[in-house]
Amino acid sequence: MSTISEFELIKQYFDEITIASHFVELGIGDDCALLRCPTDKQLAVSVDTLVAGVHFFPDVAPDRLGYKCLAVNLSDLAAMGATPAWFTLAITLPEANAGWLASFTQGLAEAAKRYDIPLVGGDTTKGPLSITIQVHGFIEHGQALRRDQAKVGDSIYVSGTLGDAGAGLAIKQSEATSLSSDQDYLIERLECPTPRLSIGQDLLGIANAAIDISDGLIADLGHILTASKVGAELKLGSLPISPALSRYADSVDVQSQFALYSGDDYELCFTVSAEKTAMLSDDLLKQCQKVGQITSGQGVRLMQHGQPIELEGRSYDHFQ
Amino acid sequence: MSTISEFELIKQYFDEITIASHFVELGIGDDCALLRCPTDKQLAVSVDTLVAGVHFFPDVAPDRLGYKCLAVNLSDLAAMGATPAWFTLAITLPEANAGWLASFTQGLAEAAKRYDIPLVGGDTTKGPLSITIQVHGFIEHGQALRRDQAKVGDSIYVSGTLGDAGAGLAIKQSEATSLSSDQDYLIERLECPTPRLSIGQDLLGIANAAIDISDGLIADLGHILTASKVGAELKLGSLPISPALSRYADSVDVQSQFALYSGDDYELCFTVSAEKTAMLSDDLLKQCQKVGQITSGQGVRLMQHGQPIELEGRSYDHFQ
Repeated sequence: MSTISEFELIKQYFDEITIASHFVELGIGDDCALLRCPTDKQLAVSVDTLVAGVHFFPDVAPDRLGYKCLAVNLSDLAAMGATPAWFTLAITLPEANAGWLASFTQGLAEAAKRYDIPLVGGDTTKGPLSITIQVHGFIEHGQALRRDQAKVGDSIYVSGTLGDAGAGLAIKQSEATSLSSDQDYLIERLECPTPRLSIGQDLLGIANAAIDISDGLIADLGHILTASKVGAELKLGSLPISPALSRYADSVDVQSQFALYSGDDYELCFTVSAEKTAMLSDDLLKQCQKVGQITSGQGVRLMQHGQPIELEGRSYDHFQ
Repeated sequence: MSTISEFELIKQYFDEITIASHFVELGIGDDCALLRCPTDKQLAVSVDTLVAGVHFFPDVAPDRLGYKCLAVNLSDLAAMGATPAWFTLAITLPEANAGWLASFTQGLAEAAKRYDIPLVGGDTTKGPLSITIQVHGFIEHGQALRRDQAKVGDSIYVSGTLGDAGAGLAIKQSEATSLSSDQDYLIERLECPTPRLSIGQDLLGIANAAIDISDGLIADLGHILTASKVGAELKLGSLPISPALSRYADSVDVQSQFALYSGDDYELCFTVSAEKTAMLSDDLLKQCQKVGQITSGQGVRLMQHGQPIELEGRSYDHFQ
């Protein structure tokens, strides 16, 4: 197979992700992309790197990887309540493998189309496989859902179900060859997370604080608590557990450990004051679950049947 | 030495690069940074990854690496004529080495302060060393210097001197232990490039097309030619060669090969129509040199003493 040049490679595979957009004056192909910003909005910007062997299995299906790379970045926009605008892609590849790139691009394009966000520029380099995506979105001035505005007495909610991606990871690590439909579902939750963009946008003007759950509920709620200088009580019995996870792990303790400590779910965690709870629509309440309360003090207290309990577990930290 | 957590690490080292800026509503520490965009400007965005062992020696002085990572990105803003606004940093590190990070951050902060550009967010991950920076800048609507507007008859200029970084790389690769001041200079040109921001801004309304020279003059001028559907003639005798390079390589052919084919100089290459040549200020003309002419046809023709000549050489391409 003949190698293709870097420039052909970029052109061939990434040009097709350029969705038409009012914001894009000049897309891929010059020293910079040129973008228009609406005059009445703030720009929200987030960047995430996924490294082979750290954030994903090097042999993961490339289309799923492409999808996930964009989805996890969009999740950061969701956590602020922002609307996606455009993204850039910096990809480092060990070789120019046309089949791999075609599949990666297909998955990336699928996510880009689903969430209506054009690729406007990037960089392709040679080296150990890693992908850095930066997403840009817009939000009304002063409306963004931040981490530092949780107040004592706020209810704590999470979207979707927790722990599925962690169980998916455990299944992948077990290298099981024949998978049940529950196991397929849990792996799909790991590999194709859903950025909760519409939930984030619906929470503007309602939630006091929000974050997306990438490192586990305890770790990410912890960021809200630190930034807001408050504590929290979580009710173990209220954690939303999917039917698949409840069948995969029949001990409630193990389910709770997945839900609290495993990452990659990309659900939202947010807090709402008592006065604004009534503003949560039925549609939102169907997708979200109250799991606890913001308290004074610091750190998270786990409660079961009205009593504080200890549960072993540790959140993911790259350098420990 | 005790390991420090990812979150402490980011906080400790990167907080200090947050220069006060009118544009930054919310910087490092939330899911997204929140930025203000001036209503009358376009946003210019560029991203570049530097990979250890590909774009830099793994044992390069970390402060120089930090400086260069930002400088090469700012060079893309320079090539469009944009004014720096803010940047993000995604860094992948094999380990949390406090000494290395302190030095890297110092070099990065030095470049950030010199070019008045605050760090607003980023991501720190574990893996093989690589650094992805995305710069953002502003530019008047419709004023940006693009690659696709060169016209037949335009004069071709380059800023500074060419080939220095290529010679610096050759010296580094020779692993010489005792260096002359010329050799030090050439290595400094490789490791601490100067983004030509003021030149780019001064060319707004004057130059038809511009690009920064990261992969060598032939390769990067080639991008202008392809995008503009034109050709070019370059006069070998007009290539700007530094005194250090002329002493390092005493053959004119070797000097020309460095100037034409080696990358990493981060000078600007731009084209100006006959009518607008008079608008180039004395200050600009002191920093830039006319090296040729845009012609019809395609590709670059090298000229020496009025005759076309062939010169061996090949530009850098990651995947060939």
